[in-house]
Amino acid sequence: MKDYAFGIDVGGTTIKLGFFTVSGELKDKWEIPTEKAEGGVGIIPSIACAVLEYMSIHRLNTEDIQGVGVGVPGAVLEGGIVNRCVNLGWGVVKVADELEEQLGGIPVKVGNDANVAALGEMWQGGGKGFKNLVMVTLGTGVGGGIIIDEKILPGTFGAAGEIGHIQMKNDDTECCGCGKKGCLEQYASATGIVRMAKERLAENFDETVLREINPLTSKDIFDAAGRGDAVALQIVDQEGEILGRALSYVACVVDPQAFVFGGGVSKAGQILIDAVEKHYKKFAFHASYETKFVLATLGNDAGIYGAVCQTL
Amino acid sequence: MKDYAFGIDVGGTTIKLGFFTVSGELKDKWEIPTEKAEGGVGIIPSIACAVLEYMSIHRLNTEDIQGVGVGVPGAVLEGGIVNRCVNLGWGVVKVADELEEQLGGIPVKVGNDANVAALGEMWQGGGKGFKNLVMVTLGTGVGGGIIIDEKILPGTFGAAGEIGHIQMKNDDTECCGCGKKGCLEQYASATGIVRMAKERLAENFDETVLREINPLTSKDIFDAAGRGDAVALQIVDQEGEILGRALSYVACVVDPQAFVFGGGVSKAGQILIDAVEKHYKKFAFHASYETKFVLATLGNDAGIYGAVCQTL
Repeated sequence: MKDYAFGIDVGGTTIKLGFFTVSGELKDKWEIPTEKAEGGVGIIPSIACAVLEYMSIHRLNTEDIQGVGVGVPGAVLEGGIVNRCVNLGWGVVKVADELEEQLGGIPVKVGNDANVAALGEMWQGGGKGFKNLVMVTLGTGVGGGIIIDEKILPGTFGAAGEIGHIQMKNDDTECCGCGKKGCLEQYASATGIVRMAKERLAENFDETVLREINPLTSKDIFDAAGRGDAVALQIVDQEGEILGRALSYVACVVDPQAFVFGGGVSKAGQILIDAVEKHYKKFAFHASYETKFVLATLGNDAGIYGAVCQTL
Repeated sequence: MKDYAFGIDVGGTTIKLGFFTVSGELKDKWEIPTEKAEGGVGIIPSIACAVLEYMSIHRLNTEDIQGVGVGVPGAVLEGGIVNRCVNLGWGVVKVADELEEQLGGIPVKVGNDANVAALGEMWQGGGKGFKNLVMVTLGTGVGGGIIIDEKILPGTFGAAGEIGHIQMKNDDTECCGCGKKGCLEQYASATGIVRMAKERLAENFDETVLREINPLTSKDIFDAAGRGDAVALQIVDQEGEILGRALSYVACVVDPQAFVFGGGVSKAGQILIDAVEKHYKKFAFHASYETKFVLATLGNDAGIYGAVCQTL
């Protein structure tokens, strides 16, 4: 009986591994370091080794394992082929084939980490109960993952859900990491909010607790807004406006049941959701007014949940 | 042997019917008027009547027919239930169930007309060979249809692909038909281009053939641009800019293999494609630079092709 599966989230520093029942219960989780030396050639062998060792210790056979799901920080093409992961030092790597061979034929499924996290939240997290959703990850950057009919939408070039690079402004002089100017990520990410706040503070001399905080973080801004600081509230409203506008574009394309918010900035909670939803309704096409706005609940485990969900 | 199928495109004035082989050959097509009296109660019976009559004349049995596909000008929910077709006078109508019953059990599939046209172009038109595409219909309005893995993406509220209502500008004072201000449709539709042109002509006094044409149409503008009229070329470039920008947003969401251009404005041909593609590359996320831009080829038959394709 294939009662178990592994979910693996490959990051630039550590690889998270989860051992799951096929019904979605996380039985065990642990981490190993990411072996990035020599173009990351050691990464796949170290994953295979960790999985086989775990199976051996727990007296599990190949017949007990439904599959191994992997999430990687890069574009994934058909057949589990990865096309460039800068953070891992990878060029084109046939992750699914290589890992499958080293695991003695256990089926391997591979997805992009942002997409995989979206799948995890749909399966066992904040998006439970929805079949069609868009995950919005607000961290250092702005990531996205699109789930259609309970499956990841990868896109032709692995770029579906790259909502952080929707170009929201024409007049920005600073460059986004992608090389363009005016991307959503430049305003709505953790660093983006701080940038907006600093611009706001330089523009006028309103009294605000934010002036006394150094270094200023996105958490400080949401905390101050939660305590009623007028300037912080304006900045949160500005964040809600640009995100709400971008998500109204997304709804005109895929019309999801829900937007699920994850990443560090989403820890702000309901104050963020309320700000985004208020502006979303202003910009959205009338048919999509009732789209739900919810918070992710799996935190850093979304990757291993989503990775394993790919194999089921 | 189920060798044949019917494709039916329900419009506000006429209903187009097509008789197809299941391999995609259009054997016969004809039209009947749309019976809009009394909230459109006569529409489904008139379709059933036309299909059954055709079958009787050509000695076809229920066993010969794979299915009947229908496209309607409104939002279609799961199970072929239509939620409001203003043009037909319909409220909530169980189109699939009702027509299936009147056809003695021949399976019926129903889709939104813009989505169905996209499917038709994928199957036998300009999008042949692509499994993931976005159809952009530039007519009186701007419609869209999203095809993922050879299937229509309907969206939660039937609003997937409503790209004409992406809000492109904040400062427009005129209202879109949807009630918002600044929708893509207000600039990129046939009427939108003419509006942009008139504004351009009022702003300055450059010499242009466009001043002598009354009433001015989108065709006149593209024709003049084709003959090198400088002002017309600027207007076409403006059209390319706003469409290219909107489609770069769409690519950040679904990352399609191709955009397929249909509708009256698309008759302008390569000059339109070139203008859009030039600006698209300026705004697009780098992974999606190579998205293809092609013209639709089925014209007014896209609806019956796509309708029938739903049943296969």
